[in-house]
Amino acid sequence: MSASKIIHELEQIVGKKYCRTDQEARLTHSYDATPLFQAWPHVVVYPQTTEQVQALMKVAHREKIPVISRGSGTNLGASAVPVQGGIVMVFTRMNKILEIDEKNLTVTVQPGVITRQLHDAVEAHSLFYPPDLGSMAISTIGGNIAQGAGGLRGLKYGTTTDYVLGLEAVLANGDIIRTGGKLTKNVSGYDVTRFLVGSEGTLAIITEATLKLLPKPAFQQTMAVYFSGLDAAAEAVSAIISARIIPCTLEFMDQGTMKVVEEYAGIGLPVDQKAMLILEQDGPKELVEKDLAQMEQICQNLNATKIEIAKTGKDRIKILEARRTTLSALARATATTILEDATVPRASIPAMIRKITEISERYNVRICTFGHAGDGNLHPTCMTDSRNQDELARVEKAFAEIFNAALELGGTITGEHGVGLAKAPYMKQQWGIAGIHLLNRIKEAFDPHHLLNPGKIFYQSEEEKTCQNRPAHP
Amino acid sequence: MSASKIIHELEQIVGKKYCRTDQEARLTHSYDATPLFQAWPHVVVYPQTTEQVQALMKVAHREKIPVISRGSGTNLGASAVPVQGGIVMVFTRMNKILEIDEKNLTVTVQPGVITRQLHDAVEAHSLFYPPDLGSMAISTIGGNIAQGAGGLRGLKYGTTTDYVLGLEAVLANGDIIRTGGKLTKNVSGYDVTRFLVGSEGTLAIITEATLKLLPKPAFQQTMAVYFSGLDAAAEAVSAIISARIIPCTLEFMDQGTMKVVEEYAGIGLPVDQKAMLILEQDGPKELVEKDLAQMEQICQNLNATKIEIAKTGKDRIKILEARRTTLSALARATATTILEDATVPRASIPAMIRKITEISERYNVRICTFGHAGDGNLHPTCMTDSRNQDELARVEKAFAEIFNAALELGGTITGEHGVGLAKAPYMKQQWGIAGIHLLNRIKEAFDPHHLLNPGKIFYQSEEEKTCQNRPAHP
Repeated sequence: MSASKIIHELEQIVGKKYCRTDQEARLTHSYDATPLFQAWPHVVVYPQTTEQVQALMKVAHREKIPVISRGSGTNLGASAVPVQGGIVMVFTRMNKILEIDEKNLTVTVQPGVITRQLHDAVEAHSLFYPPDLGSMAISTIGGNIAQGAGGLRGLKYGTTTDYVLGLEAVLANGDIIRTGGKLTKNVSGYDVTRFLVGSEGTLAIITEATLKLLPKPAFQQTMAVYFSGLDAAAEAVSAIISARIIPCTLEFMDQGTMKVVEEYAGIGLPVDQKAMLILEQDGPKELVEKDLAQMEQICQNLNATKIEIAKTGKDRIKILEARRTTLSALARATATTILEDATVPRASIPAMIRKITEISERYNVRICTFGHAGDGNLHPTCMTDSRNQDELARVEKAFAEIFNAALELGGTITGEHGVGLAKAPYMKQQWGIAGIHLLNRIKEAFDPHHLLNPGKIFYQSEEEKTCQNRPAHP
Repeated sequence: MSASKIIHELEQIVGKKYCRTDQEARLTHSYDATPLFQAWPHVVVYPQTTEQVQALMKVAHREKIPVISRGSGTNLGASAVPVQGGIVMVFTRMNKILEIDEKNLTVTVQPGVITRQLHDAVEAHSLFYPPDLGSMAISTIGGNIAQGAGGLRGLKYGTTTDYVLGLEAVLANGDIIRTGGKLTKNVSGYDVTRFLVGSEGTLAIITEATLKLLPKPAFQQTMAVYFSGLDAAAEAVSAIISARIIPCTLEFMDQGTMKVVEEYAGIGLPVDQKAMLILEQDGPKELVEKDLAQMEQICQNLNATKIEIAKTGKDRIKILEARRTTLSALARATATTILEDATVPRASIPAMIRKITEISERYNVRICTFGHAGDGNLHPTCMTDSRNQDELARVEKAFAEIFNAALELGGTITGEHGVGLAKAPYMKQQWGIAGIHLLNRIKEAFDPHHLLNPGKIFYQSEEEKTCQNRPAHP
């Protein structure tokens, strides 16, 4: 069928207004939050119902057109870049919270709901959706699920995957499946629900989700701790966990990051210090205060230079602001900011930090490191300029070594950002040949024609490694 | 190759002593804990290393022989019955705890470790492996993982799947894969780790597992509450959760179950009451006591007839004994005890209990109901006699209606026991045709020749519905 006839068919499904082929729509959906990756889609559609998603998918299946589902595009692994063109399916119109079930402690949502709105809505019922993502003021829950998003409370509460109880999804052939439900226990057949979490839109298109909620913690308290040495900060992380304390947040920032944040936000960080930790505990007041006191003691024993415990809600927001503004601050500090996601067993955090420092010095590249220390999830972030090809080549080599170091320490190439295009070249190292073959066979089982977000996770060629300014398909 | 040559090859791999074709070995591995299902394997092997498992699997793959991996055989869905004969691979020799990592809060084990031994070993380090299975004095961790075992602490702590961080597994073609690791966060490729949990040995053979641990709760307290009406007991469950209390255990037993347990164990249960709840909370002492007091108040408001709070460790064990002995008591009370596993959203527990009562009366069958009320996970248990063919036919019809009722209430045909052979005929109702097709394609991706635990999960024919006394293959 001719391109114009297909477009006409898509218009019939979603309405002319919601099927766009103009340059503006195509340009704004040619990239996500990952620098250096861009590819143009042929058409951008905005479905409003599962039935519309199904009808669109059936056309795509018949015509063998790639389909890339997308929320707000905050992805950091180029997972939402339509590298083979085709249809970008945007879920901003499917943005309803369908039900908050207080008896079963669940919430059922459409994929386009903004994560922060979900938080606010359930908290109004004294309920709690723990995944606390850096991007949650913008990101959608559908994107969070597709990427298996992590965030700041992973250590105590786990990540998105721990809260997805049931899904409705459209398969590559247009079939609609429903998995799971409002159930604490369910072992009927394979766990397709959790398998779709983190599958980056390559296996199915999520059209509805039922999520687990917890009672909202009664109280929370936050503390910032500064150290004159990197090792002492890293050691504090280990000492806290070894003391059998599981704080809800345990964040790390190195001096480079602190300096950039201070320049950007001017919140009075002591930038002469080598590292800071942000610690938060939640739960019943007496318990929170006990844990805070114990963590304070541990940090003092490790010669922390300064400890600030938030006395008021305002104090707390100020401390957390340092962490929340990190990505924005880093992004504005240089022309090109490449944020990575190497993750290791938490006891290997000191070794990993030393390794990153050594590598960045050896390649003469500027790397600021921050991240979720309690999860072993670091974000070494390179401050560079994509116009400097020589430096960019060194950056790429440095990151390859950082990924290697993470794997050697028993870690992973991506803790929470996903593989997308950016990390696909490193998958073989992590999974081995047998593992890659298995992943390929699974992909084929779901999507034999490679229509769903093609080119992601599975590395195809050197050419795709950087698809910067890749032209649109005709 | 001839059967005797294949047996010789298997002997070469594991040693003659650990490759058995005698009638005793074959008989004792022809059934698991599920009544009415039996089928003889050709050979029983006991590997000691992953490399032996791999070598065995390569022979099976070459010769297209079914392989059923098995721990202690406590399964209640006939998942370990070798319905197509072949090789039963028993993991009792791979029973080592390889590492307790106190810094990363993980334990790495071989699959044959007895669950109770794992509990004891980590608790000696003040650590805690939450899944608390009814069968854990006998069951193995490999079996727990293969079945996605649930247990008594699901409401607060989740089930086995929430604690599996990494796996080593042998695929149907003999490939060895390693997934995950000592990582809180990991989104590198599909979540094969959790997908293998609950896959009942149909996708891969698990040879090693890394499990997540928590700090051991400082304190726990237990309470038994009796009610003169079923509805009040069911309402108490809802009222507790609605009050935003998440106890670690919230068990239910009806009068029929109480009577059987009392006859068996003689522990002084007030058998004139209609229902009992067993409630337990763990955590810091002050918090546990606060929750217990609040739950006591809720039960009093619902006119509980008697409340016993354990004052000593002995009291606690006595209360929990009522629950722990349930299966043994029911199993001995009649010739044939069929224990089911219908599970619903927890707010639907009252509706489900009413439905079970109505169905059992209509079919004139004796059903005792107990289970994990906090999880919506009920075990309606039929007391029957397999020699009474007329009654058995009514039992089968009653259970079919019970499964239907669970699905109508948004539930599942199996909360924690798995599908196996017993529930395979009901899978289509839960998944729909599109879902079943997808599960089939996934199975093919892992195991194209259907060598791994064939006949399970996927229902083939009426004949297989009861494979009682199925003869051994030649």
